[in-house]
Amino acid sequence: MKKIPVTVLGATGAVGQRFIQLLENHPYFEIVSLSGSDRSASKRYGEACRWVLSGSVPEMVHDMVISPTNTDLPGKVAFSALPAGIARELEPMLAAAGYAICSNASALRMTPGVPLMIPEINYDHLEMIPLQHSQLGWKGLAVTSPNCTTNGMAMTLKPLHEAFGVEAVFVTSMQAISGAGYPGVASLDILDNVIPLIQNEEEKMQTETNLLLGKMVNGQRVNAEIQISAHANRVAVVDGHMVTLSVKFKHKPTVEDAIRVLEDFRGPQEVANMPTAPERPIIVRREADRPQPRRDRDAGAGMSVSVGRIRPCNLFDLRMVSVVHNTIRGAAGGSILNAELLYAKGLLD
Amino acid sequence: MKKIPVTVLGATGAVGQRFIQLLENHPYFEIVSLSGSDRSASKRYGEACRWVLSGSVPEMVHDMVISPTNTDLPGKVAFSALPAGIARELEPMLAAAGYAICSNASALRMTPGVPLMIPEINYDHLEMIPLQHSQLGWKGLAVTSPNCTTNGMAMTLKPLHEAFGVEAVFVTSMQAISGAGYPGVASLDILDNVIPLIQNEEEKMQTETNLLLGKMVNGQRVNAEIQISAHANRVAVVDGHMVTLSVKFKHKPTVEDAIRVLEDFRGPQEVANMPTAPERPIIVRREADRPQPRRDRDAGAGMSVSVGRIRPCNLFDLRMVSVVHNTIRGAAGGSILNAELLYAKGLLD
Amino acid sequence: MKKIPVTVLGATGAVGQRFIQLLENHPYFEIVSLSGSDRSASKRYGEACRWVLSGSVPEMVHDMVISPTNTDLPGKVAFSALPAGIARELEPMLAAAGYAICSNASALRMTPGVPLMIPEINYDHLEMIPLQHSQLGWKGLAVTSPNCTTNGMAMTLKPLHEAFGVEAVFVTSMQAISGAGYPGVASLDILDNVIPLIQNEEEKMQTETNLLLGKMVNGQRVNAEIQISAHANRVAVVDGHMVTLSVKFKHKPTVEDAIRVLEDFRGPQEVANMPTAPERPIIVRREADRPQPRRDRDAGAGMSVSVGRIRPCNLFDLRMVSVVHNTIRGAAGGSILNAELLYAKGLLD
Amino acid sequence: MKKIPVTVLGATGAVGQRFIQLLENHPYFEIVSLSGSDRSASKRYGEACRWVLSGSVPEMVHDMVISPTNTDLPGKVAFSALPAGIARELEPMLAAAGYAICSNASALRMTPGVPLMIPEINYDHLEMIPLQHSQLGWKGLAVTSPNCTTNGMAMTLKPLHEAFGVEAVFVTSMQAISGAGYPGVASLDILDNVIPLIQNEEEKMQTETNLLLGKMVNGQRVNAEIQISAHANRVAVVDGHMVTLSVKFKHKPTVEDAIRVLEDFRGPQEVANMPTAPERPIIVRREADRPQPRRDRDAGAGMSVSVGRIRPCNLFDLRMVSVVHNTIRGAAGGSILNAELLYAKGLLD
Repeated sequence: MKKIPVTVLGATGAVGQRFIQLLENHPYFEIVSLSGSDRSASKRYGEACRWVLSGSVPEMVHDMVISPTNTDLPGKVAFSALPAGIARELEPMLAAAGYAICSNASALRMTPGVPLMIPEINYDHLEMIPLQHSQLGWKGLAVTSPNCTTNGMAMTLKPLHEAFGVEAVFVTSMQAISGAGYPGVASLDILDNVIPLIQNEEEKMQTETNLLLGKMVNGQRVNAEIQISAHANRVAVVDGHMVTLSVKFKHKPTVEDAIRVLEDFRGPQEVANMPTAPERPIIVRREADRPQPRRDRDAGAGMSVSVGRIRPCNLFDLRMVSVVHNTIRGAAGGSILNAELLYAKGLLD
Repeated sequence: MKKIPVTVLGATGAVGQRFIQLLENHPYFEIVSLSGSDRSASKRYGEACRWVLSGSVPEMVHDMVISPTNTDLPGKVAFSALPAGIARELEPMLAAAGYAICSNASALRMTPGVPLMIPEINYDHLEMIPLQHSQLGWKGLAVTSPNCTTNGMAMTLKPLHEAFGVEAVFVTSMQAISGAGYPGVASLDILDNVIPLIQNEEEKMQTETNLLLGKMVNGQRVNAEIQISAHANRVAVVDGHMVTLSVKFKHKPTVEDAIRVLEDFRGPQEVANMPTAPERPIIVRREADRPQPRRDRDAGAGMSVSVGRIRPCNLFDLRMVSVVHNTIRGAAGGSILNAELLYAKGLLD
Repeated sequence: MKKIPVTVLGATGAVGQRFIQLLENHPYFEIVSLSGSDRSASKRYGEACRWVLSGSVPEMVHDMVISPTNTDLPGKVAFSALPAGIARELEPMLAAAGYAICSNASALRMTPGVPLMIPEINYDHLEMIPLQHSQLGWKGLAVTSPNCTTNGMAMTLKPLHEAFGVEAVFVTSMQAISGAGYPGVASLDILDNVIPLIQNEEEKMQTETNLLLGKMVNGQRVNAEIQISAHANRVAVVDGHMVTLSVKFKHKPTVEDAIRVLEDFRGPQEVANMPTAPERPIIVRREADRPQPRRDRDAGAGMSVSVGRIRPCNLFDLRMVSVVHNTIRGAAGGSILNAELLYAKGLLD
Repeated sequence: MKKIPVTVLGATGAVGQRFIQLLENHPYFEIVSLSGSDRSASKRYGEACRWVLSGSVPEMVHDMVISPTNTDLPGKVAFSALPAGIARELEPMLAAAGYAICSNASALRMTPGVPLMIPEINYDHLEMIPLQHSQLGWKGLAVTSPNCTTNGMAMTLKPLHEAFGVEAVFVTSMQAISGAGYPGVASLDILDNVIPLIQNEEEKMQTETNLLLGKMVNGQRVNAEIQISAHANRVAVVDGHMVTLSVKFKHKPTVEDAIRVLEDFRGPQEVANMPTAPERPIIVRREADRPQPRRDRDAGAGMSVSVGRIRPCNLFDLRMVSVVHNTIRGAAGGSILNAELLYAKGLLD
């Protein structure tokens, strides 16, 4: 099979690096181009990039020369790890010009017609894509991944919402430093400390969850109406975002009901067949002290969300804890899974 | 002035050490005796104790020989940092035998007649003490300090409760490792990790807060009836427990109302005069990213609670963040302040 | 191919767990028995063991009932992760009784006739094994792995010693917490701290290196005579021991000479063919700030040693830095590679 | 007494903040001016500065307007926490113009005539100051503090050098993140990691130690000639630099000799009288696992160096471990002690 040539936009940043790592030896996609800032452009990737993941810059991109970030890309598909400001300008231009953009940036997440997608839970939101042509006038298309923290929360809530109707959620996050990119969080701020602020994160958690859990009605997304109140915190963890959740339901489940629904959850077969899809999107941990970021972030190669400590709540109905790998499922891995689906549906041809 | 001779029970543990550190050069109290387990008894403190705080074992206790933990103490006053099981057995025996016990253990916190006290917020609970004589038949007395996390939460809620009536609280804690004593939390469990379980902590936060915010009616404590739902977590912080709070009020305050009430809060003058009382029991931080454990735990020499990020909540009324030094205000320092008050009221004579 | 049935002795500890993790799906070996302390014996492994690695207890051993640690084992091969005291008693008994013991314990490391082995560097020490029969009277045999820190240091020194003759070494280690097992290092001792003491570690580094770099002469090991002075320290790192080395040579190499020799190093072909052997036993990092524990410990699936910052020394000849994964190459992985060789040589039949 | 008005140059950085913290309520000096970069200039300090120490910006400087960094300062005395490049340009201009500069920057450390000083060990280097007038043509003067790591090493070596003659030293440092300023070390680089590189640090340790241990001969400093080989590493510690030392002497001391000499060490009486001088410049720890950064950095209010694990070395003569608070004794505190001495000698009039 001939692989589809792809560009990674914003390739030198922390999420860009994760895209490259996960696309090494990918069965469908092959990186042919990397874009970077003016400071990096025209340098070799291996020299311009301060590799912050384990090991080394993969051989396949080591000597690739970084292109400036513009609208002239080889091939037709791009993964975007662009900073918010640049993404806001460039991503719509690329989609308009005919490219298929799988973005991890927040720029287009709220744009009507652009699916905000976690394939296992709202695969059908791809139905919105024709609106991008008819209403936005794009020749190409764009699909976005949610905010990293929202990813784990929305995956956890989805099966519970289907079964019991989620009405309200209190959520407190304890987020890993890798979520802030590189150099990101100063070590003087986080060693022996917790930072109780992540700019704009609480708003994203509150808003994006309702988009993700929205339903398609006549080709239009009707958002969910869950009331969410969030506290976002940064902790001294390398990878893995944890959230504590207190959930109020329309139909109150028992703890065992909730566990069963979460354990039984699988994505649609079409999604499950994708190479990056984990065997189980949700893993329920029954130990009293799990999930934990370090021990559960790599579940399903970083694509499974781990849920545990499911217990009654004396204000709402249930309390629970959820962990997601913020730069795999919560960022690059999620966008790649989106792209695999676009490919399977013939939308990348 | 002749100082009052005191014993520290459970002197070799982490809280016992903090008692010793804070009682060095205390204007009212002088350590004359230290108790320890059978393993430590009859050894010199400087040899038996693995000092886990900064610096060294204070000179004044270095060569003091550790006594076994029993009911034969010099003087009449004891500070207790005993483990739960031993405290449950020994503290009532000591109080019955005529000693005044200022305990940081959980053993007697729920016992009717025994004040659970944070002097700035419920000083009047000392009125219960006569019940210890009449109902429990004790010749001595006991006063207890609350759980470390509850300490910071209850101090934060008190002025708000007085002004606006707190009805319900969602609270998620991020607690320091020193709260688990020594050796306590294994480093393999907490480095690059969060542990979403602290045994029995959530129950204590939910129960003790209502005792602390209770009102005295005819010499009896009538507990508050705030609904509380807690998530307790351990994070990689040395000292300082942080909580995120979402609070529902009877009379909804504005953010500025809440800030004003918190900033204006002072304990009763009689409490404020005590040597260990901080100038301000509550310090409001207006920076967007404060309070933080490392930067705020030492406020007021570890006796002030820092509160910040006071902002609206789209489910309840207000969200905020609070930090308390868990082994000073939240443990040994709190018990010492209790003892100072007993002294000032003539209850240690 | 029928797999060889093996026992893991001391299976519930941190190194025991690593043995189990690395033996899951091993092409030659199959775990049929797990031994533990009296406290664990007769419980199921999944219940008795506090799994401290990522993820979960592997399915294949989850319901296996733990045996007491004694000399009655199924099969003929055992991997030992026993505590020092028990190993000292039991390992010689097992070898005497006919078992083949691949041990990570220190008990037999200094015993004449017992190879202390890192296959890539002293594979020929297997020639000593007949001495175990003739001199120790064992029906079985034993092979040992060196101390975790020594592992990385000896691997680094070997090719340099062959080429230039190492005469003296100053070494300072910065060792991961997992080296102390579980619960091991208390978090209160290591968070925001360094502990400048690891009991007996410096002696092991000084002694074992000379055994490992010894030469076989007429079936006898003649130890190397390198003078080594060590400082062992514990740092807040989960996995991965780092050492800084200052090395004095008989024949002083240039930096480029040393790099070339290290880069060219390969183990004997027979070793390189083993399933656990990495493609390169030594990886030279040319970046100015590598190797680092977190980013280099997993090189070669944890079996490669990473060396970098090779530069002149103004007292000795060269300075350099080396990182080894302490529980894979430095413990369980090293012992498994030893066993693979025994198998390949027909010594497990 | 009227206090001497002083300026803090580079006041918003991490060391600048430490200067301000230590000068609050200083008996001799009063901050009247703060300088900052163009970005901060003309803003109020409390707004322009991201305070990274504990607690809050001190009241006394909160509303002080930051001046641009130039040669027009109120008063005649300035403390410099300037970045290297700016210091190199500005400090000589200020000294030439008549100011007395107490600098923590590296700019002038190697300049002939400028004392590099740790008052307890080389107070007499002040004799060089007349050379600044005669040879450099300065109307004012400059005194510098050594590199933070060198500080702890040189203090440790001084009494040993006097007594036994230090000939050679192998040193490996484990340095705190605060040594890199703010934002400084990225948390992604140091959490669960060690960085084996600190730019230019090894050279400074090797060079500055010989200046500090130099002797004054006829008003000229004759540098010591100790051979030093250094490995500098960054570890996940907030404050406190640790070094392991292997030392070769002209006259080999016993361990007890070395301990005695270190314990007996005091600075000259004139230095000991200064307000910032600690009671003991060196504290010897006899516990097997001390000194440690977190538990010993605050010894003597951060001005004492702690030394321990003094034991034989099987290559050189003795091994030992030393800890210094890198931003107090090793930076701002050291410079303030220098200034106190200048004041006492009438050099600030």
